[in-house]
Amino acid sequence: MAETPTIRFGVIGCADIARKLSRAVTLAPNATLYAVGSRSLDKAQSFAAANGFPDGAKVYGSYEAVLDDPNVDAVYVPLPTSLHVRWAVLAAHKKKHVLLEKPVALNASEFDQIIEACESNGVQLMDGTMWMHHPRTASMKDFLSDAHRFGQLKSIHTCFTFAADADFLENDIRVKPDLDALGSLGDEGWYCIRAILWAANYELPKTVLALCKPELNQAGVILSCGATLYWEDGKVATFYCSFLSNLVMDITVVGTKGTLHVHDFIIPYEEKEASFYAATESGFDDLVTKWGSQPSKHIVKTDIPQEARMVSEFARLVADIKFNNCKPEKKWPTISRKTQLVLDAVKASIEKGFEPVQIQE
Amino acid sequence: MAETPTIRFGVIGCADIARKLSRAVTLAPNATLYAVGSRSLDKAQSFAAANGFPDGAKVYGSYEAVLDDPNVDAVYVPLPTSLHVRWAVLAAHKKKHVLLEKPVALNASEFDQIIEACESNGVQLMDGTMWMHHPRTASMKDFLSDAHRFGQLKSIHTCFTFAADADFLENDIRVKPDLDALGSLGDEGWYCIRAILWAANYELPKTVLALCKPELNQAGVILSCGATLYWEDGKVATFYCSFLSNLVMDITVVGTKGTLHVHDFIIPYEEKEASFYAATESGFDDLVTKWGSQPSKHIVKTDIPQEARMVSEFARLVADIKFNNCKPEKKWPTISRKTQLVLDAVKASIEKGFEPVQIQE
Repeated sequence: MAETPTIRFGVIGCADIARKLSRAVTLAPNATLYAVGSRSLDKAQSFAAANGFPDGAKVYGSYEAVLDDPNVDAVYVPLPTSLHVRWAVLAAHKKKHVLLEKPVALNASEFDQIIEACESNGVQLMDGTMWMHHPRTASMKDFLSDAHRFGQLKSIHTCFTFAADADFLENDIRVKPDLDALGSLGDEGWYCIRAILWAANYELPKTVLALCKPELNQAGVILSCGATLYWEDGKVATFYCSFLSNLVMDITVVGTKGTLHVHDFIIPYEEKEASFYAATESGFDDLVTKWGSQPSKHIVKTDIPQEARMVSEFARLVADIKFNNCKPEKKWPTISRKTQLVLDAVKASIEKGFEPVQIQE
Repeated sequence: MAETPTIRFGVIGCADIARKLSRAVTLAPNATLYAVGSRSLDKAQSFAAANGFPDGAKVYGSYEAVLDDPNVDAVYVPLPTSLHVRWAVLAAHKKKHVLLEKPVALNASEFDQIIEACESNGVQLMDGTMWMHHPRTASMKDFLSDAHRFGQLKSIHTCFTFAADADFLENDIRVKPDLDALGSLGDEGWYCIRAILWAANYELPKTVLALCKPELNQAGVILSCGATLYWEDGKVATFYCSFLSNLVMDITVVGTKGTLHVHDFIIPYEEKEASFYAATESGFDDLVTKWGSQPSKHIVKTDIPQEARMVSEFARLVADIKFNNCKPEKKWPTISRKTQLVLDAVKASIEKGFEPVQIQE
């Protein structure tokens, strides 16, 4: 058997999330940490030392230097959203494959520049939505796709909230209008919207209406918000996200015959296994005093955590391009763009004073 | 110790739900089945024989006869909503205490006639929302009221759906405009709205906005709908109800410090115990790869099912009035009325083409 080709990663920026991603690269069987760049060489050196970079890994005092290193196959971009278009486009022009943190851009038009740069340079683009790669997600999708167990999709509710501390609310990039201007919508709402689209087989809703009364900080950045989404066939979805509530990561999907519940969809409770609850044709006893059967708990194990599976899948696609003459997989940028389109619509609805916004592809 | 006074119940109408309630009367220590009336004497006789009525129970061929029986202390009214105002008012005038199925009326103005009749005749009024009386409900409230464990309330989501069969969708009173004209909103939405108000300490929302695209049958009765509710302080709630989806009975309540999840709030999975999930200050490990702690499962046992506890509480209040010169407890009609007010606002929002509706007490 041929040896698994190993893809060499460069990390540009030393954000907190890059620590998790670097560990994921070390856990992925087909990826290796090769370089890290920061605007501060000291910071890059400390980061490399603390995050499992091998001896001999390249440490650079700029992002450009990582992109100019001919041995770097792919870059991970954990930079603030406002910098995505600049650095992702530049990375693509330097023929680096791009693993891009979410939200992928400040709006779909910016993201289209990134897509164009990646397509014209033949590099893979994938966003960093880790839960998509957990085997649980595939198991849940099997359930939702089963006409006998789930039936036809009718409604979806998703919620992602966490209680940011005072330091976060003062200093985090996600509350800064010049860095992650989309705030809670861009950070948490991204996951809620992605989960809704995932459940709906990526069929875009026709209309989006933001919940009234989003909470904003003094700079106007969203701290909590939500929306209702409508499809032509009567499907409806709601979501809520907030930096100001206890940690919640819920998906509820209801079909004509079945129900799916999961309470830790973005970060599973445990690394090595995750569960969800599924029910089919639930009902009552004769006198309606108790349920006929309870939802069943499904446990899905994973040998490596979901973020390592993401890195591995991305590296597999990159290797196919590099060694097997394959084309980049369009699925990933396509669903990133759809997520961004809905996110843009929620933002537009808020800005229009909670008017419905039609989604156009 | 004095013997527990026993309250004699008359049931007017032989609806399916009256079977469950009759069993509950037999299980309540302070209540007894005394009479049943139907427009058909045969039907009343069969009902009494099949539902635990004691030998010698009175069986009448009309509702009036039950109300005219001087030994009946209280009546249970399971009739279609459109008949509530007529029969509940008449029962009150006959000095019968009234246990009234939900929705209590077609609108708050009708319900005000019932309240007025009960108040002026000094009889207790309570609606038949059984889950309010499960000891789990009190345990959950303890959690929501705990500033250390739950903090300040931020958002609520509730959902009650079930998959009605073809016979229901054709023939049930809940799809008939002349019987239960409020359809899914009146039947299922009632529970969703009550749960929201319960979580919000019965503080009415200021604004209600129905979800677009409710599903209606050919007669215009609601088969599925939902709404978003807003309070002045930024609290937000959403609910969804439907006759066209698999069985779901969810409450999710999120506070600044805690989270409550329950998936069988209206009818517990089992009769003798029920559970909920509570979490406080949930968080992650250092690398954000797993949760620090999982929500904890709380199991609450009950010696008799929630519907028997409801009957028992109602009978206790009736006995206090009858034997101890107490006044009727206003809490129950007050929360019934608030539930109806919100329900009316959702209906008004639908009828206005999904415009926001302000709630006025």
